[in-house]
Amino acid sequence: MKILILGSDGYIGWPLTLHLLKEGHEVAGIDSYIRRTRVRNCGSDSLTPILSTLDRLTLLRKYPNYIKGYGNLVISLGEYEPFIIRNILRDLKPDTIVHLAEQSSAPWSMISSEKASETQLQNVIGTLHLLWAMKEVCPEAHLVKIGSLGEYGTPNCDIPEGFIKRDCSWRSIRCPMADLPFPKSPNSFYHLSKVHDTHNIIFACSNWNLRSTDIMQGVVFGVKVTDNESESELTRFDYDQYFGTVINRFCAQAIIEYPLTIYGRGDQLRGFLSLSDSIQCLTLAIENPPNKSEYRVFNQFESTRSINGLAKMVVQSAGELGLKVEISHLENPRKEKEIHHYNPAHQKLFDLGYKPTANIYQEIQILLSNLLPYKDRIIKEVILPTTRWI
Amino acid sequence: MKILILGSDGYIGWPLTLHLLKEGHEVAGIDSYIRRTRVRNCGSDSLTPILSTLDRLTLLRKYPNYIKGYGNLVISLGEYEPFIIRNILRDLKPDTIVHLAEQSSAPWSMISSEKASETQLQNVIGTLHLLWAMKEVCPEAHLVKIGSLGEYGTPNCDIPEGFIKRDCSWRSIRCPMADLPFPKSPNSFYHLSKVHDTHNIIFACSNWNLRSTDIMQGVVFGVKVTDNESESELTRFDYDQYFGTVINRFCAQAIIEYPLTIYGRGDQLRGFLSLSDSIQCLTLAIENPPNKSEYRVFNQFESTRSINGLAKMVVQSAGELGLKVEISHLENPRKEKEIHHYNPAHQKLFDLGYKPTANIYQEIQILLSNLLPYKDRIIKEVILPTTRWI
Repeated sequence: MKILILGSDGYIGWPLTLHLLKEGHEVAGIDSYIRRTRVRNCGSDSLTPILSTLDRLTLLRKYPNYIKGYGNLVISLGEYEPFIIRNILRDLKPDTIVHLAEQSSAPWSMISSEKASETQLQNVIGTLHLLWAMKEVCPEAHLVKIGSLGEYGTPNCDIPEGFIKRDCSWRSIRCPMADLPFPKSPNSFYHLSKVHDTHNIIFACSNWNLRSTDIMQGVVFGVKVTDNESESELTRFDYDQYFGTVINRFCAQAIIEYPLTIYGRGDQLRGFLSLSDSIQCLTLAIENPPNKSEYRVFNQFESTRSINGLAKMVVQSAGELGLKVEISHLENPRKEKEIHHYNPAHQKLFDLGYKPTANIYQEIQILLSNLLPYKDRIIKEVILPTTRWI
Repeated sequence: MKILILGSDGYIGWPLTLHLLKEGHEVAGIDSYIRRTRVRNCGSDSLTPILSTLDRLTLLRKYPNYIKGYGNLVISLGEYEPFIIRNILRDLKPDTIVHLAEQSSAPWSMISSEKASETQLQNVIGTLHLLWAMKEVCPEAHLVKIGSLGEYGTPNCDIPEGFIKRDCSWRSIRCPMADLPFPKSPNSFYHLSKVHDTHNIIFACSNWNLRSTDIMQGVVFGVKVTDNESESELTRFDYDQYFGTVINRFCAQAIIEYPLTIYGRGDQLRGFLSLSDSIQCLTLAIENPPNKSEYRVFNQFESTRSINGLAKMVVQSAGELGLKVEISHLENPRKEKEIHHYNPAHQKLFDLGYKPTANIYQEIQILLSNLLPYKDRIIKEVILPTTRWI
């Protein structure tokens, strides 16, 4: 299968590119490298000593099934140049396009008007250009789009896998004759950008008969996909207030015995999965494409957990490594429900054969061990939240 | 009340500005005048001989309650300059902001990748900059935002006024503990931009305690708000394939005895209201603001009609003026349901006192008479649709 990865230098894009090459697929990658710049502009850097962009290309070129000539194109999808992605698709004719080329931080999108509009411009306009280019050049290709479980927000009711089914009954609204998208209640301008993408993609599938898998992904954590990964293959690992997601941030804090920073009560519930599970699920989506004109939603996570529960696991696991870690409850910089019902469905990937690699406690143990060699690289100043969402 | 109109040179913005001035409100207006350029770039022009931008400012300045100094600022909300609108709000401190400054044509947004992204950039990023500026400068102000009834699409079920209420019961989804926004199924990149706006505004109200009325407006038609309007007060009137909405286009076709161009079967149902009703409803929304942090939705239309029913009314009404008009069914350039259930609720504006000015047949008669003096200005070449949505 010929696969184009947009955002191939990122936290998920890089290991996915390597994994698909090892699986024997033909893979091309594109990245603007703006994530590297943004993290550095926040005063931080990847905890793992990742290769330079040039060295990564050299590594990829050793795979005979790596499609050269794209990886050194530094393009940004969201600029006023839809013809660039159009020309690439025309030249490459991919079977599958995995779109990971989005600004991926919720807190970063809440810093200012400028950062919020930069996020929505890159994500929404970028995806829009991609959809038009697919329509014009490769309407048969399968778009695998990374959305976020956070698109649903916390609506205090069970969350289906994308749609309100036509067989539901509503008391005050006559039953729809077709499925309707489940209403979204996102909680940051980043999550909103993903909701906007979702609406644009649904329309592109129904109007132009494109096919897409829209992945409502939970919070990903971890740093290695397999045990035998070399240092040169390592993905980036962010732990700062903007780009560090919760378990990764906790584990980075734990290895330097810095108190774990819980925002508010910590009873917030979210869906989580390890990096290796994310790569496994994305591969399942790629290798099992939907039908033409089909828009499907996968809620991609292993299990739901409370922030407090995770923090306790990190403390216990760190203890086994001889580390003494405390928990610190900070005033919540975000406005969010701290006590709520949370039960998103997530059956479709299991139906395709998804088998979690390990349980979440084992994954945390592995992650802590993997991070320990790099503990001297941590910059403490970037951990505490300074951006208030309200 | 101090009111800022964004898009004060437009089809609705101009008569709304005049009406609010006549009602005694303090009014300031801003426009980028890009609508004038876009219509001319499509080879068309307003059927009514509207004043130049300079002459319109001279006319407005005769009102003692017109706030000078803004009307000659040609600004675009969607550019990378959020500080411009921030500075204006800081200076003006409006009680109400009426946001009409969006690209308003669905077919125009479907021409190309460039036009689609220009639409979403102007509308979504423009509104985003406005929301941030309101948060930072005038969080107490009331945002009246023009959305579209087309945001809902045609979901083949009854459509509530914005929300799925918490007292509804779902068979497959546990009942939500709070209202959820009714899911949107828009059918063009223009309508999608309005849905994106809606989601951004809901979040701004819940996160920052802003207040907003989001108006899901039906298709507006007509050219005068009152009988005694002078020619210099006339609003623009578009009848071309891109900016001409359906009744306006039919009436312009009728006065030159051009066959009415129905797209497809003509059994499509939509909500409609006259321009004078639109001005009346917007004034009601402005003069009855919501509470702080409240986000409310008004479905703003007088009645639902089929395209065939409207065409027949125009034929009959034109006949009374001695005009012989036929109906022509064109192959539908859009992909849309042509037979469907359609029943959107629209009670809230009636509860506030909305009284339709006249029935739709009378309104069509008035419109035809108002347009007849300008029939020699019609450019026939811009009427037929050339942009296919699929």
